Amino acid sequence: MPIVDFRLRPPSRGFLATKIYANAANRDRYTRRLGFEPAASVQAQSMPLLLQEMDAAGITRGIVVGRTTATLGSVPNEDVAAIVAENAGRFIGIGSADTTDRRRAVAMIEECRRLGLAMVNLEPGVMEPPLHADDRRLYPIYAHCEDTGMPLVIMAGGGAGPDITYTAPAHMDRMLADFPKLTVICSHGGWPWVQEMVSVAFRRPNLYLCPDMYLIDLPGMDDYLRAANSFLAEQLLFGTAYPFCPLGPYVERFMQLDIKVPAREMILWRNADRLLDLSLA
Amino acid sequence: MPIVDFRLRPPSRGFLATKIYANAANRDRYTRRLGFEPAASVQAQSMPLLLQEMDAAGITRGIVVGRTTATLGSVPNEDVAAIVAENAGRFIGIGSADTTDRRRAVAMIEECRRLGLAMVNLEPGVMEPPLHADDRRLYPIYAHCEDTGMPLVIMAGGGAGPDITYTAPAHMDRMLADFPKLTVICSHGGWPWVQEMVSVAFRRPNLYLCPDMYLIDLPGMDDYLRAANSFLAEQLLFGTAYPFCPLGPYVERFMQLDIKVPAREMILWRNADRLLDLSLA
Amino acid sequence: MPIVDFRLRPPSRGFLATKIYANAANRDRYTRRLGFEPAASVQAQSMPLLLQEMDAAGITRGIVVGRTTATLGSVPNEDVAAIVAENAGRFIGIGSADTTDRRRAVAMIEECRRLGLAMVNLEPGVMEPPLHADDRRLYPIYAHCEDTGMPLVIMAGGGAGPDITYTAPAHMDRMLADFPKLTVICSHGGWPWVQEMVSVAFRRPNLYLCPDMYLIDLPGMDDYLRAANSFLAEQLLFGTAYPFCPLGPYVERFMQLDIKVPAREMILWRNADRLLDLSLA
Repeated sequence: MPIVDFRLRPPSRGFLATKIYANAANRDRYTRRLGFEPAASVQAQSMPLLLQEMDAAGITRGIVVGRTTATLGSVPNEDVAAIVAENAGRFIGIGSADTTDRRRAVAMIEECRRLGLAMVNLEPGVMEPPLHADDRRLYPIYAHCEDTGMPLVIMAGGGAGPDITYTAPAHMDRMLADFPKLTVICSHGGWPWVQEMVSVAFRRPNLYLCPDMYLIDLPGMDDYLRAANSFLAEQLLFGTAYPFCPLGPYVERFMQLDIKVPAREMILWRNADRLLDLSLA
Repeated sequence: MPIVDFRLRPPSRGFLATKIYANAANRDRYTRRLGFEPAASVQAQSMPLLLQEMDAAGITRGIVVGRTTATLGSVPNEDVAAIVAENAGRFIGIGSADTTDRRRAVAMIEECRRLGLAMVNLEPGVMEPPLHADDRRLYPIYAHCEDTGMPLVIMAGGGAGPDITYTAPAHMDRMLADFPKLTVICSHGGWPWVQEMVSVAFRRPNLYLCPDMYLIDLPGMDDYLRAANSFLAEQLLFGTAYPFCPLGPYVERFMQLDIKVPAREMILWRNADRLLDLSLA
Repeated sequence: MPIVDFRLRPPSRGFLATKIYANAANRDRYTRRLGFEPAASVQAQSMPLLLQEMDAAGITRGIVVGRTTATLGSVPNEDVAAIVAENAGRFIGIGSADTTDRRRAVAMIEECRRLGLAMVNLEPGVMEPPLHADDRRLYPIYAHCEDTGMPLVIMAGGGAGPDITYTAPAHMDRMLADFPKLTVICSHGGWPWVQEMVSVAFRRPNLYLCPDMYLIDLPGMDDYLRAANSFLAEQLLFGTAYPFCPLGPYVERFMQLDIKVPAREMILWRNADRLLDLSLA
C-alpha cells in the first residue's frame, strides 16, 4: 500500500534556513512534547538519511510544502521545484505565495504553475500583518486561485497566528462558502478546534483536513477518529509534519489508531492520489 | 416505554414542498453520510408507511416541527395543525414564525396558539437576512413568547446559518440569560459546539438540547453522552430529524448508546412529557 | 505522597459571607449535579471538621483562594492571611484584588505581598462591569504583576462571566502572549472550552490549568486526561473547588482517572510545589 505524506519539509536548500531547521532546540522540544524522539535525518540534516527513513516507513511520496512567512522563514518556489527534480519520483512540490500583497501573490502563484508545483501554500496567520483566513485582503488571491484552478494549502491550526482566533474555523468556513470551487487543504487540521473544524468539513466538500502532528495522542484525537470512521474519510489526509515527527514512529502510531480499513486507505493515499492525480491506484 | 420523537417532519402537505422533501438527492446524501439508508416511507412519501415505521420503532408520539425559512422552505401553521388532526394521537404540532418582521412573528405566534400548536419554531440563521440568536431584532419576539408563556424551538446546530458562528453557543447563552422564563429547545443541540453548548445548558435551566441527527457516531458524541449521564439528563430530548434518519435504525443505534437507564427514560419521553404535558407517565 | 489542593475555600471568616457559603442551596445543587454529596464540614461550617476531612483525604496543603467580586462576594486579604496563620502549616494563602480600578488593584496586590500571600486572584468576569481577560483596562494590573514577579490566579471557566465568551480561551491566549513572564493559574481550567484551552497551554508555558470541579465526569474530561498524559502534565494543578466538592470523594474519583503515575504526581503536588516553593520534594 502506498503512503503519501502530505506535509514533509526535507533538510535541503531553503528549508534549512527556516525556523524548523534553524531553531533546532525549539523544534526538538515540540517533537518530544508529542512523545517522539527527533529523527536521525533531522539531526544530521541529511537527505540520504531522509530517503532511507521514507523507505523504512513505507512512505512512497512526500509532499514538500514550501512557505512564505514573516515569522517562520521562507523557501523560494525554485528550491521546492529543485528538490522535486533532484529526487525523481519521491516528492511532489507545493509552492507558496506572499499573502501581504495581492499582485505579488498572483505572480508567485503563476511562478508555482510554471515550475510544475501542484498547489500553493498560504500562511496568512504568520505574516506581517497577520490575517484571518477570511480577511478581505486575501479575497483577490482566492479568486485568482479559484478562477485558474489552483488548489490551496492554508495553515490553520496549531500555532498558526498570534492568538487562537487565527485558527478558529469560522474564518475558513466563510471563505470556503465564498469560493465553492476552490479546493483547500488545511494543514494542522484546524487543531484545537476539532469539533468545529470537522463540522466545517461536513458542510464544505471543498475542504480537506491534514491534522498531521496534532492528530496523535492529543485532545481532539477522538473527534478526528470518529469523523474518519464516518463522513470525513474522503476529506482527511495523512501527514507527519516532518521534521517535527519522525516518519517511522509516526506511521507506526497512526497504524494503531482505530480507523477502519477503507477509511485508512483513503487517508493514507487515495485522497492524495485523487487530489494530485498521482496515478497510484 | 413510550418514545417521543422531538423532531419529525412527515411526508404530508406543506412539508413536501420544503427542501427536505423537494431535494431528495441532497437529503439522501445526508442520510448516507450519517451511516443510514433512507426510509421506505421517505422514498415513497407515504404517511401510512411512516405510521407503520413509527409503530415498528416504538415511537409513540412524533413532534411535527413546522418551519418558516428563506432557504429551506416553509410550512403553513395550518398544515401542521391539519397533520395533527388527521392522525389523532400520533403527532403533536409545533408551528413556526417569520423572524424577519416582529409584528408578523407575533401574529404567527398567536396563530399557533389558536391552532393548538404547542410551541413555536424559529430558525433565524436561515432567514434573509440571517440573524444570530441574540440579535436585538429578535428580542421583541422573545419578549412576547416569555410574557405569554409560549416555548420556543430554535434551530442552532448543524448547517443552521451561513457560517458556524450562527450556531456558536454564546448567542443562545446571552438570550437565555436575558429571558430566564422563556423555555427554549435547541434543535441539532448546538452541534458541533458540543462542549460549549452543554455548558450553556449547565448554567441555563431553561434550555433543552435535541441533538437529533448529530448525536450518533459524530464528533462530540462522547461529550453529549457524558453530559447525559450526569447533569444534562433532564435537559436532553430524543429526536430522529426524520426524514434525515430512518426511525427504526435510529432508535436501534440510540438504544446501544452508553446512557444509563434513568437518563435514557428522561431523554426518550419523560422530559418531553413534562414539557408538553402529554400525561404519558 | 503529598497532595496540594489548589482551590479550597474554608468555612472561616470572610468566606462565610460569600455566596458559596451564604447561598447554601445553590452551592449544594452544584455539588449534587457533579455527582457528590455535600461535605459534613461544609454543612456544619466547621474548621475542625474540614481539617479532619483534609487528613482523611490525604490533602496535606490547601490553597486558600480569596476573592474580590461583584456577584460572588469578597474576602478581605487580611482574612486569608489570618486563616493561614491560625492553622499553621495547613494552608497557603492567595489574596485578591479589585479589577475595576487599577490603582486600587495595585494597592491590594502590594497588600497581598505584605501579608505574605503567595499569589493574587483576579475574577474580572464577575466584576461590575465584567471584563474579558484581555481587556485593556486590566493591562496596567498585569504589567505590575509581571514587573514585580507576582503570579496571578484568574478565574476563567465555568460560570465566570455573564456569558461564555468570558471564558473563551482567546482572551487569555492574548494576554499571556503580551505578558510572557507573568505566571497565570486558570481556575476552572477554561471549561468548557477544553480543546481550545489545552492548546493555549500548549503554546503558553506561563499558563497553568486547574480544572478542579469541572474535571470529573463532565464533557471535556477526556481531553484534559489526554493532555495530562502528554504535554500538559507540568501545567496542570489539582483542586477540589471545596466547598463545591467534598475532599475525600473528589480525591477518590481523581485517583481512578486514567492518568499515568508521573503525571499524577506532578498534578497532585509537584507542580504546586515548584510554583509555590513549598519544599515538599
